[in-house]
Amino acid sequence: MSKLRVHNFTVSLDGYAAGPAQSLETPLGVGGEELHGWMFKTAYGAKMFGGEGGETGVDNDFARQFEENVGATIMGRNMFGPIRGEWPDFEWTGWWGDNPPYHHEVFVLTHHARPSFELEGGNIFHFVTDGIESALARATAAAGGKDIVLGGGVATIREYLRAKLVDELHLAFVPILLGGGERLLGDGVTEGYEVTEYVPAKAVTHVRLTRSR
Amino acid sequence: MSKLRVHNFTVSLDGYAAGPAQSLETPLGVGGEELHGWMFKTAYGAKMFGGEGGETGVDNDFARQFEENVGATIMGRNMFGPIRGEWPDFEWTGWWGDNPPYHHEVFVLTHHARPSFELEGGNIFHFVTDGIESALARATAAAGGKDIVLGGGVATIREYLRAKLVDELHLAFVPILLGGGERLLGDGVTEGYEVTEYVPAKAVTHVRLTRSR
Repeated sequence: MSKLRVHNFTVSLDGYAAGPAQSLETPLGVGGEELHGWMFKTAYGAKMFGGEGGETGVDNDFARQFEENVGATIMGRNMFGPIRGEWPDFEWTGWWGDNPPYHHEVFVLTHHARPSFELEGGNIFHFVTDGIESALARATAAAGGKDIVLGGGVATIREYLRAKLVDELHLAFVPILLGGGERLLGDGVTEGYEVTEYVPAKAVTHVRLTRSR
Repeated sequence: MSKLRVHNFTVSLDGYAAGPAQSLETPLGVGGEELHGWMFKTAYGAKMFGGEGGETGVDNDFARQFEENVGATIMGRNMFGPIRGEWPDFEWTGWWGDNPPYHHEVFVLTHHARPSFELEGGNIFHFVTDGIESALARATAAAGGKDIVLGGGVATIREYLRAKLVDELHLAFVPILLGGGERLLGDGVTEGYEVTEYVPAKAVTHVRLTRSR
């Protein structure tokens, strides 16, 4: 059966997965870019952005699970772009340029319908207006027996967690303070989940949460 | 100059330093006892509770800083005991029995005056009703040039942090989920502080925050 998985989701010491004051210029909020430095240093991160080199080791081993046995992606609308409310037009096609790093079908949760479109590299974006369970059903069908990655952002992951639809989450805790922003954990959202892996590394602490049986 | 220091303050993955539903039976809230298992395993923790043995190493090196060069302690009333509101009598003398582990003067913040008292081992408890700055001034005088430990709980530490009166904090992040309770970090409370040490260990990640210059 296909699993719904979260990978490389990075959280600050004070619990924020995005900083305060998100905008087009700072999509991860003030200080939020600092969260992902650990991943860009890995060989997997370098390759994702078309580079070479990068570190192997624990961080890289976790980072590259992001694409292992994955057949579809689900994300919230704010992860797809900065536009809120009705689509003024369909020119915005995501943060990732002409050839996004997914290479499969991506399901974007939104309240505002929009036609599907295709970019290079087998990236097909669909827009789902009838809720998280519908998105999961469509992504499961598209994944062809492989797993589905739930990309984010914070609000979307919390919604899927509360519905207990996430099978496992890999979180990376980084030793920075954001001071404010969007919190991932807490307020009962992980009820029914347990810590199944804890791997402290030099610059990041990796944790896996798994839905309890 | 005396420093105000926090030591061995333990926080769950989801950011809670005490679990939900605190009471006389579960002073650290549901699941909160699990937070401190790492410390009880150390040689320092074993000695603190009158035992022997215990582990040496990174965790122990951090744990024993709790009493290095310390001349006084400040704590919130809820850390002193479970009684709220007016003191019905003065029978409650703390959670720690006849010989608490402080061995110096302890200043308890409260809105309800109470006479000082002394227990074995040089433990003298005072009750401060005129605020956190007054408690710090009195503790500094009592410490005789040594540092002061701010013991907790969460609300008291947050209050001293917001006033930027804490010089440094040692936090231990443990890989458990409490789901709810009292949060230590976030909401701007560490503004003016930075991460100056990050030491991942086998079962706990140690972090030191220091007030920026």
